[in-house]
Amino acid sequence: MKLIIAILQDKDAGRAVTEINRRGFRATKLASTGGFLREGNTTILVGVEEHDVEQVLAVLRRTSSERHETLTPQTPAHSGEPYVPFPVEVTVGGATVFVVDVDRYEKF
Amino acid sequence: MKLIIAILQDKDAGRAVTEINRRGFRATKLASTGGFLREGNTTILVGVEEHDVEQVLAVLRRTSSERHETLTPQTPAHSGEPYVPFPVEVTVGGATVFVVDVDRYEKF
Amino acid sequence: MKLIIAILQDKDAGRAVTEINRRGFRATKLASTGGFLREGNTTILVGVEEHDVEQVLAVLRRTSSERHETLTPQTPAHSGEPYVPFPVEVTVGGATVFVVDVDRYEKF
Ligand code: NI
Ligand code: NI
Ligand code: NI
Repeated sequence: MKLIIAILQDKDAGRAVTEINRRGFRATKLASTGGFLREGNTTILVGVEEHDVEQVLAVLRRTSSERHETLTPQTPAHSGEPYVPFPVEVTVGGATVFVVDVDRYEKF
Repeated sequence: MKLIIAILQDKDAGRAVTEINRRGFRATKLASTGGFLREGNTTILVGVEEHDVEQVLAVLRRTSSERHETLTPQTPAHSGEPYVPFPVEVTVGGATVFVVDVDRYEKF
Repeated sequence: MKLIIAILQDKDAGRAVTEINRRGFRATKLASTGGFLREGNTTILVGVEEHDVEQVLAVLRRTSSERHETLTPQTPAHSGEPYVPFPVEVTVGGATVFVVDVDRYEKF
């Protein structure tokens, strides 16, 4: 048995947990802040058999990896001058994952 | 030294922590949601010597196990018809517990 | 790789995290209550290489150790009698730290 402790951005945590549940695993969300990632993150705990670790990591990699998104700012309303909007690239997401050995696992 | 990470239902967490404290162990509560159990759960951390693990697990088993409770719904007030209430069985409680090896323990 | 799980008093957590960050490590704060320490504590997670464990523990020891502070109560305003204030010693701070082995570490 392994315990996966993953720190995700809040905006990715919902989808990550849904996908993890869909594969039959359970995830517990802990409220967390700052540190490993930009503000607004969630720590999730997932207990899995060793042979299922890779599958959960794949879900986390797909739902929560750091990626670049392109934002095109809105045309400003207050200006009479010609406005040429150009896209801005922002970095979102990112996950830090620790897999820890479980000595003993009980379900009551 | 072992670290016990237990996910309990909110309604059981108070009594579990009280009983753990009464035996001279300390528990830290983390706010958590969803996943391992029905909504509204609490994650607790308890650091114990290896020879005390069994004692803390026994407390968790006794205070937090999944069990069935029987509810008898109230007589509805709005009906003139004869009403035969019958008991409904609900499932409450349940705990998921991970015991993890502690490499090093410090108290400052 | 090691995962440091530290339970600190709220009043020390901010400075501890700032000092940890200053050394290039990242800390995630989890909201926690009661148990290991007097009310109002914070659990922090810090993932570090084995050779950096000592450095983070030194920061925690310096920022969060239990210590005694001396308070001199204010002169009471409501009394006409002579008042000889004398200092009261209070205990503040204190940290409980678990270092856990990390089986696998991923950053996405
Ligand atoms: Ni499986
Ligand atoms: Ni003992
Ligand atoms: Ni280093």
